[in-house]
Amino acid sequence: MSNSFAPLKNDTFLKALMRQETDYTPLWLMRQAGRYLPEYRATRKGAGSFMSLAKNPDFATEVTIQPLDRFELDAAILFSDILTVPDSMGLGLYFEEGEGPKFERPLKDEKDVLALKVPEPGSLQYVFDAVTQIRHTLNGRVPLIGFSGSPWTLACYMVEGQGSREFHTVKTMMYKRPDLMDHILRTNATAVATYLNAQINAGAQAVMIFDSWGGALADGAYQRFSLRYMQDVVNQLQREKDGQRIPVIVFTKGGGLWLEQIADIGADAMGLDWTVNLGQARAKVGHKVALQGNLDPAVLFADHDQIRQQVTATLQAYGAPGAGHGHVFNLGHGISQFTPPDAVSVLVETVHEVSRQQRQNKA
Amino acid sequence: MSNSFAPLKNDTFLKALMRQETDYTPLWLMRQAGRYLPEYRATRKGAGSFMSLAKNPDFATEVTIQPLDRFELDAAILFSDILTVPDSMGLGLYFEEGEGPKFERPLKDEKDVLALKVPEPGSLQYVFDAVTQIRHTLNGRVPLIGFSGSPWTLACYMVEGQGSREFHTVKTMMYKRPDLMDHILRTNATAVATYLNAQINAGAQAVMIFDSWGGALADGAYQRFSLRYMQDVVNQLQREKDGQRIPVIVFTKGGGLWLEQIADIGADAMGLDWTVNLGQARAKVGHKVALQGNLDPAVLFADHDQIRQQVTATLQAYGAPGAGHGHVFNLGHGISQFTPPDAVSVLVETVHEVSRQQRQNKA
Repeated sequence: MSNSFAPLKNDTFLKALMRQETDYTPLWLMRQAGRYLPEYRATRKGAGSFMSLAKNPDFATEVTIQPLDRFELDAAILFSDILTVPDSMGLGLYFEEGEGPKFERPLKDEKDVLALKVPEPGSLQYVFDAVTQIRHTLNGRVPLIGFSGSPWTLACYMVEGQGSREFHTVKTMMYKRPDLMDHILRTNATAVATYLNAQINAGAQAVMIFDSWGGALADGAYQRFSLRYMQDVVNQLQREKDGQRIPVIVFTKGGGLWLEQIADIGADAMGLDWTVNLGQARAKVGHKVALQGNLDPAVLFADHDQIRQQVTATLQAYGAPGAGHGHVFNLGHGISQFTPPDAVSVLVETVHEVSRQQRQNKA
Repeated sequence: MSNSFAPLKNDTFLKALMRQETDYTPLWLMRQAGRYLPEYRATRKGAGSFMSLAKNPDFATEVTIQPLDRFELDAAILFSDILTVPDSMGLGLYFEEGEGPKFERPLKDEKDVLALKVPEPGSLQYVFDAVTQIRHTLNGRVPLIGFSGSPWTLACYMVEGQGSREFHTVKTMMYKRPDLMDHILRTNATAVATYLNAQINAGAQAVMIFDSWGGALADGAYQRFSLRYMQDVVNQLQREKDGQRIPVIVFTKGGGLWLEQIADIGADAMGLDWTVNLGQARAKVGHKVALQGNLDPAVLFADHDQIRQQVTATLQAYGAPGAGHGHVFNLGHGISQFTPPDAVSVLVETVHEVSRQQRQNKA
């Protein structure tokens, strides 16, 4: 498929990531293509499993576009999973109904770890095909975000074999065999960078690194085993394509204590969960990175008036973006499958309306 | 049973909580009486369920003392559960093998919530009997800590009916019906204060409020729904008994972003999880409160040399306590049931030895 794409009609999201002035605060929602939408559930039912949906570019395109047809979102995000990279390394990603992702062949011992290799790019061709097809289908409507899990977050799943509350297995390896952990993380960093660069070449206009489990680490261990390898990824990324800057967003859930350090790894923007005070975060690092977040997804279970109130409070916490500052509205975590779609309409309208007013009041 | 007790032989823990000088850094471990000890598992087997162990003062005394007979710990903590208060409100606390605590009758609707009442103190007499019996059995060896869950943390279990990853049910009530949530939290605050005061009168020499789920809240919601009600508890506590100060420790897991605000609610000490940098926390609030923590429990799965290294690093992060500063060594969370008891010996010896050296080097 051709890699020549239609010009972008709405660049508000990209401008905010680059801390340029915008008419309003752009927004998208983590997991915006997902189970809370009846049309997603219908497509998913036709496709069978989550992975057969994600591996088929036609299906992936269809569900990526679905939320844009309902809501005035300012970005699309590739429909995929954060764990495609270790899957392509041969670990066997699978999903059981109602549970998180799991691996059939987790890394159990030194032999497994040392056998780990950066995957052939061809093994993830289905992702790059989906990116290109989605970008063509978007036809310049909004920018397309590509993504991956962070080296540490991938390692958690690769060693635990699944999500975990305490991360005993992966932390035991980290404290006991830091050499093995470094081998995994080095391999992951190269693989993730290669993967994101291929997404950029296929048409992704921004990329995001999801460090879902960095917040489980101790101070010190976070910097050593998660942040450092995210920095390695960021350093290896292609930051321009066809004359356009490709902004990079990093998001450590539970990383609010390490904002200054995260802001220094060279990304354009930083995701924040709802525990962070947006105003304080802006004061600390808002001149270095754009901030993305950070409404508690549970707000969307409240009444419409209450949603408007909380969304307005979030926008006010950041304040009207001034020169060299940028805010992308988002939730502090993926949208819940139990969210009523009506609540998302209220959220989207409120963000656009209130953030326009903020800029007018300022002017 | 008499409430006249033997004089205290080791007051290092209490002195550190009150930010007085000590010869070494005292330590105890959250969940130190528990499943990682074979002697605990034997007693538990004889008692039957967790609650029949906790509700029998003889058994509770036996398991409270067990870790002290193995390790030179500087405090004992009542063997009980953080959820005894809602149990005594009639919600029916129970434990299923290998799972967290659950309630038979969670608060499902407005009617359930409004029917909630502060329990009769007599309904928790088994706890106060255990406190007095343990204190007598300790015979002045080390101080005894009493405890409860925080109003918010109790409410999480009371509304969800069990632990949760996302807390959708309780957060929905909080965002949608803050009036009902306030009713629960007000009731819990009075009940918890009454309960802790009764523990103090029965012989507890320090008390700790466990806010295990405060860190799940958004900035703003934490202050409004968790911290404020912990402050209400602290305000109602009896702070002196028989001429001795009864120090209060508050611990919000995941509360590292709110240290200054937590330090201001009037507690003597603050628990910290492992995500917090101890040196930075000390610089911020160490003149107001003693700090307790914060080794990652997963360190205890490493080799002995590695444990020594990490424990030393934790002590160095705090530094040698100076005038008006205090540090109590602990884990950042409860000890894992899979911890080898040998690892705890190494931990305890290292804390005592290295912290004595720190003070000598300083002198």
